[in-house]
Amino acid sequence: MIQIPQGFRLAAANADFRGKKLERNDLCLALSDVPANAAGVFTTNLFKAAPVLISQERLAGEMPLRGVLINSGQANACTGEQGLQDCRDSLAMVAGALRILGVDVPEETLLPASTGVIGARMNMEKWRAAMPQLAESLGQVDLEGLARAMMTTDAFPKMAGTELSLSGGRVRLAGVAKGAGMICPNMATMLALVMCDADVPAEAWSAMFRRAVNATFNRVSVDGDTSTNDSLFGLANGASGVQVQGCELKMLEGALTTVLGKLSYMLVRDGEGATKVMHISVTGAKSDADAEKVARTVGHSQLVKTAMFGRDPNWGRIVAAAGRSGADFNPMDLTVTLCGVELFSEGRPTDQDFDALLEEPLKNTDLPLDISLGEGPGTARLLASDLSHDYVTLNSDYRS
Amino acid sequence: MIQIPQGFRLAAANADFRGKKLERNDLCLALSDVPANAAGVFTTNLFKAAPVLISQERLAGEMPLRGVLINSGQANACTGEQGLQDCRDSLAMVAGALRILGVDVPEETLLPASTGVIGARMNMEKWRAAMPQLAESLGQVDLEGLARAMMTTDAFPKMAGTELSLSGGRVRLAGVAKGAGMICPNMATMLALVMCDADVPAEAWSAMFRRAVNATFNRVSVDGDTSTNDSLFGLANGASGVQVQGCELKMLEGALTTVLGKLSYMLVRDGEGATKVMHISVTGAKSDADAEKVARTVGHSQLVKTAMFGRDPNWGRIVAAAGRSGADFNPMDLTVTLCGVELFSEGRPTDQDFDALLEEPLKNTDLPLDISLGEGPGTARLLASDLSHDYVTLNSDYRS
Repeated sequence: MIQIPQGFRLAAANADFRGKKLERNDLCLALSDVPANAAGVFTTNLFKAAPVLISQERLAGEMPLRGVLINSGQANACTGEQGLQDCRDSLAMVAGALRILGVDVPEETLLPASTGVIGARMNMEKWRAAMPQLAESLGQVDLEGLARAMMTTDAFPKMAGTELSLSGGRVRLAGVAKGAGMICPNMATMLALVMCDADVPAEAWSAMFRRAVNATFNRVSVDGDTSTNDSLFGLANGASGVQVQGCELKMLEGALTTVLGKLSYMLVRDGEGATKVMHISVTGAKSDADAEKVARTVGHSQLVKTAMFGRDPNWGRIVAAAGRSGADFNPMDLTVTLCGVELFSEGRPTDQDFDALLEEPLKNTDLPLDISLGEGPGTARLLASDLSHDYVTLNSDYRS
Repeated sequence: MIQIPQGFRLAAANADFRGKKLERNDLCLALSDVPANAAGVFTTNLFKAAPVLISQERLAGEMPLRGVLINSGQANACTGEQGLQDCRDSLAMVAGALRILGVDVPEETLLPASTGVIGARMNMEKWRAAMPQLAESLGQVDLEGLARAMMTTDAFPKMAGTELSLSGGRVRLAGVAKGAGMICPNMATMLALVMCDADVPAEAWSAMFRRAVNATFNRVSVDGDTSTNDSLFGLANGASGVQVQGCELKMLEGALTTVLGKLSYMLVRDGEGATKVMHISVTGAKSDADAEKVARTVGHSQLVKTAMFGRDPNWGRIVAAAGRSGADFNPMDLTVTLCGVELFSEGRPTDQDFDALLEEPLKNTDLPLDISLGEGPGTARLLASDLSHDYVTLNSDYRS
């Protein structure tokens, strides 16, 4: 079981936002006992849900932050001014419910995140009714409980954690995420929260969080769509008493990247209808930007994704995707290696029996796909899911 | 039946390039009796098939051109130097076979195009064996015969034509195309040829052909992948004796755009597994470039495509795609109208019963989707297919 970092308490409740009387929680809170340094990365979509706007506002403000409140079942997106007010009201309710139990948390110190149906107002009566259960559960909920309350169509809860021994002592990191679950009328929403009990300077924490997100959550592709609600949070509360500075900041960043990397892998693994995870590695590009173009074009290609689903070592689709990516390279220098078998080099397929060599490897879930451009030092990595019948079923089956 | 423009003769043969002894032609020729002004637009993929390279070379040269030779079943892509030689040899064989029958066509005046399996050498024995049949059929083949010989997994042959009365007399245009058919290991290939018997200045013809392609074939989306072999040709041979100049050039361009528009519509309609064609129109963008970003992001979105397949008026996915397109607009000014029903305006869904209003319209094949950004004069149009189970089946079912 993954340990919760020191000074964090978790809470969860069943508000029945979906109105289906399910026996599952859909509301949760991660609260730090002391003010924490908080970092956030959010959707770049022009349509930002109310909780995204409010979280961004609070992260930009001066007020020290204490926690993250997440609900599933209602996204509070495309809800206008009313949605902003509802979001603020819900945070005030939580602060009020905690105050009754003697936990003093100013409502302005909470960051909100929501996932679920967009376009509809949040049901404030349901929020109100769930408050006692949420407040009373504080400290009684484990990491899996937090992960489960934020799930939508996720097949499994996503948790990851690690510990790090530094000169000042031991620090812990623990995180939860939810993946590309879609419910109608909606789009994928990506949410994640990492808690850390290290004492890290605010700016260093923010910077390492951004870099770690860029190396992990920004390097996955399920279907290329980004949502109104995507939100990633990092809270470092210093409760371990271990100050992190100098070269140990790099160690902490490594641990943070590991935790976010595990969570983002689970996200792709649990992509809707996904049966495979392509581990795309592009090397030898003129620049990292060129390498990324190739990785993203290959990883987003419907033809490559369906080929992987069909266990088809279809070098033609991979080569064609690289060729139209916009990256600058000489086609004669491209090599494509799938599961260790070189498929393409010197402008043509290698003279091997791909079907025989790859029949077994392509049954695996994780498929390494290495693409070398032979041009320069640029590299990029990307995790991408395949495209299966279940993806189409999940995303078209609106009327059932 | 669509009339063949004057001075063109068509030929077709069964070379059995697929090696399956099918009773269908897989090789065809459109030949002008006199030198024609020729225009071509080709794949932008870095990996260009041998026939693409040779066609580009010939179009850039000084030699007047006479015809287009198209084969299906073998793409001659990723075949290196040998592929270029095979392509030239095949053109020389055709010229030789025609010469035996008294038709003198220098091989350098023929433009090649191929579609089919990539990576394998063309079977030159099969080329040779098919030559007598091809030459003897010259003038015996109608437009449908031409269209059928270039099909791969296309469900139906694609032909379009029109006539135009100009001050100098009547001119004809007729075209054929093949669509997004995929065969393993391969990707979609788009081929089209338009013949015209007007007497048009070479530069004017090339320029109008490019513009017409840009307004039609460059405004369709099946799956966003571009192939090694995409080739579009336009031949104007002047055999009608009707000179086109001045404002009549615009009329001819309109007719050419109509023919290419019909062919490109059929291409989307016959997209693999497609059940719907979205007619996306974006208006009110700051620029045409911004409008195009929105149209392409919406038209390529797997989530929007699966929603259309599922007859789901999912404004959320459309709005989110517009919001992440990179176009600059105020979310409060966006309106989304599907099949005439306004789904979204003023930052939120309109207060209507979409399911009731759209249940019947969404059963149609053609779905108009109008998106207005309320920013400026920029517009864009795009035809996009939906994403169905059959798409996944066709593109993953490699081992069957």
